[in-house]
Amino acid sequence: MSETALFSRVALLGIGLIGSSLARRMKRDGMSGHIVANARTQKSIDTALQLGFADSGTLDQAEAVKDADLVVVCSPVGTYAEIGARIGKHLKPGAILSDVGSVKEAVIRDLGPHVPTGVHLVPAHPVAGTEHSGPESGFAELFESRWCVLTPPTGTDAAAVAKMESLWKGCGSNVEIMEARHHDQVMAMTSHLPHLIAYTIVGTATDLENTLQNEVVKYSAGGFRDFTRIAASDPTMWRDIFLNNRDAVLEILQRFTEDLTALQRAIRWGEGDKLFEHFLRTREIRRGVIDAKQA
Amino acid sequence: MSETALFSRVALLGIGLIGSSLARRMKRDGMSGHIVANARTQKSIDTALQLGFADSGTLDQAEAVKDADLVVVCSPVGTYAEIGARIGKHLKPGAILSDVGSVKEAVIRDLGPHVPTGVHLVPAHPVAGTEHSGPESGFAELFESRWCVLTPPTGTDAAAVAKMESLWKGCGSNVEIMEARHHDQVMAMTSHLPHLIAYTIVGTATDLENTLQNEVVKYSAGGFRDFTRIAASDPTMWRDIFLNNRDAVLEILQRFTEDLTALQRAIRWGEGDKLFEHFLRTREIRRGVIDAKQA
Repeated sequence: MSETALFSRVALLGIGLIGSSLARRMKRDGMSGHIVANARTQKSIDTALQLGFADSGTLDQAEAVKDADLVVVCSPVGTYAEIGARIGKHLKPGAILSDVGSVKEAVIRDLGPHVPTGVHLVPAHPVAGTEHSGPESGFAELFESRWCVLTPPTGTDAAAVAKMESLWKGCGSNVEIMEARHHDQVMAMTSHLPHLIAYTIVGTATDLENTLQNEVVKYSAGGFRDFTRIAASDPTMWRDIFLNNRDAVLEILQRFTEDLTALQRAIRWGEGDKLFEHFLRTREIRRGVIDAKQA
Repeated sequence: MSETALFSRVALLGIGLIGSSLARRMKRDGMSGHIVANARTQKSIDTALQLGFADSGTLDQAEAVKDADLVVVCSPVGTYAEIGARIGKHLKPGAILSDVGSVKEAVIRDLGPHVPTGVHLVPAHPVAGTEHSGPESGFAELFESRWCVLTPPTGTDAAAVAKMESLWKGCGSNVEIMEARHHDQVMAMTSHLPHLIAYTIVGTATDLENTLQNEVVKYSAGGFRDFTRIAASDPTMWRDIFLNNRDAVLEILQRFTEDLTALQRAIRWGEGDKLFEHFLRTREIRRGVIDAKQA
């Protein structure tokens, strides 16, 4: 159904879990014509061609974006500045440049200066994922019923934004438009801090003496195992998220540390009432999560 | 099949999620004869009788344990000392006194002095649960394929320990015997710290201004929602766990805080290599959890 395709030629710079899932969905539902896959290794490109979610592939990013009417950067956020410098001049007039990164102010900071007049920058963040990485781990249903946040800078062409909205709705997502700065604050709380905490606690367990560590694994169903899943996410991606959402993460982490210290003090001094009150009021927000059908 | 029942009369002091699940399983598989339910309110007892997992009920704990050959304390750990004082003299010679609490040194400390000669104290901790509480929330399969840890004090009658082992194996659990102190250290890491962290992070979100809080709920799929589930557990039970496993929890919490501070510093100073190395080594333990079939 390529006559009705949203985009006639799409370039994906990065084909890991998110990029390859997007490609699979576009292919499945005829949302794009030709899809060019770009990756760091020929092996990944070969995988993409073999799995059939891309029509062609190249290691050269300038080559990849040529003639594309949609370019989506799907690599760790730390690579964006270099990518911008590499592809800026080769973007086709009228094209949309987007991405799937988990932070958004840094994306505008790093890609923005390289976007030529007549090319539309529409940053996007599909709030979806699994703990698995790589082109083999993607699937067309990944974005189904999940949120996708678009953060177009003020003055962005409305038609380009609408087109990206159609693309993500076509992927089954609910689309929300917000300011990049606000997005980064919300994600610091809902995603970045939880990941940092999970990475920390699993690291703490890793440092335990060997016998105790085996038992931690054995009895992980008591709560710990949920953290191990979160802390199995892609290390490069998460390094870049923390480095590129530093201020918002440090701010929310400071609040968290103060709260944890208060609970620690209550435990040390046997202040049962304080603990009980705290544990009681956290139930409310769980009800909110259930009511919002996000449980 | 009450002729082959392990116990002819069982008293459950507390019939919440764990107590009522144990009762359901014993009834379903004919592991006990008469089951007496004790609770704080007549309403809970009526629920037990109506749901059919108990044969009789009483608000009087001394009355409940009379003639029982198994007494299982299934209430928050903070109630044990009082319960011990109340029931000690009424325990039948040869009876087994057990419990289902998440800490074990405190159980021996609080119940031990009240156990008359000829009664066998065999503390137990079924490592299972959901975020739901109350007699209605139990189900017979709750303990299936989960661990149950027994922590009999040195010198406990071997036949009594074997009988409790049979009971929990009959509930579908894998049984492990260990020292109470060691149990408490392992659980501080695998269960108590994760719960404390989850309660803290959800509390931090609860303190955010209202608009931001709504968005936190909306985008909770990014990692936060897993914490809200853990932080919805019973507040009284968890207050008592932290108060009664104070030393082990504070020790592991101190390690966690040091590790978190190190990561915080790495984020502040942009030390990407440190973050990456940390995030990489936490993957190992996830593999352990998957290999141990606890994922």
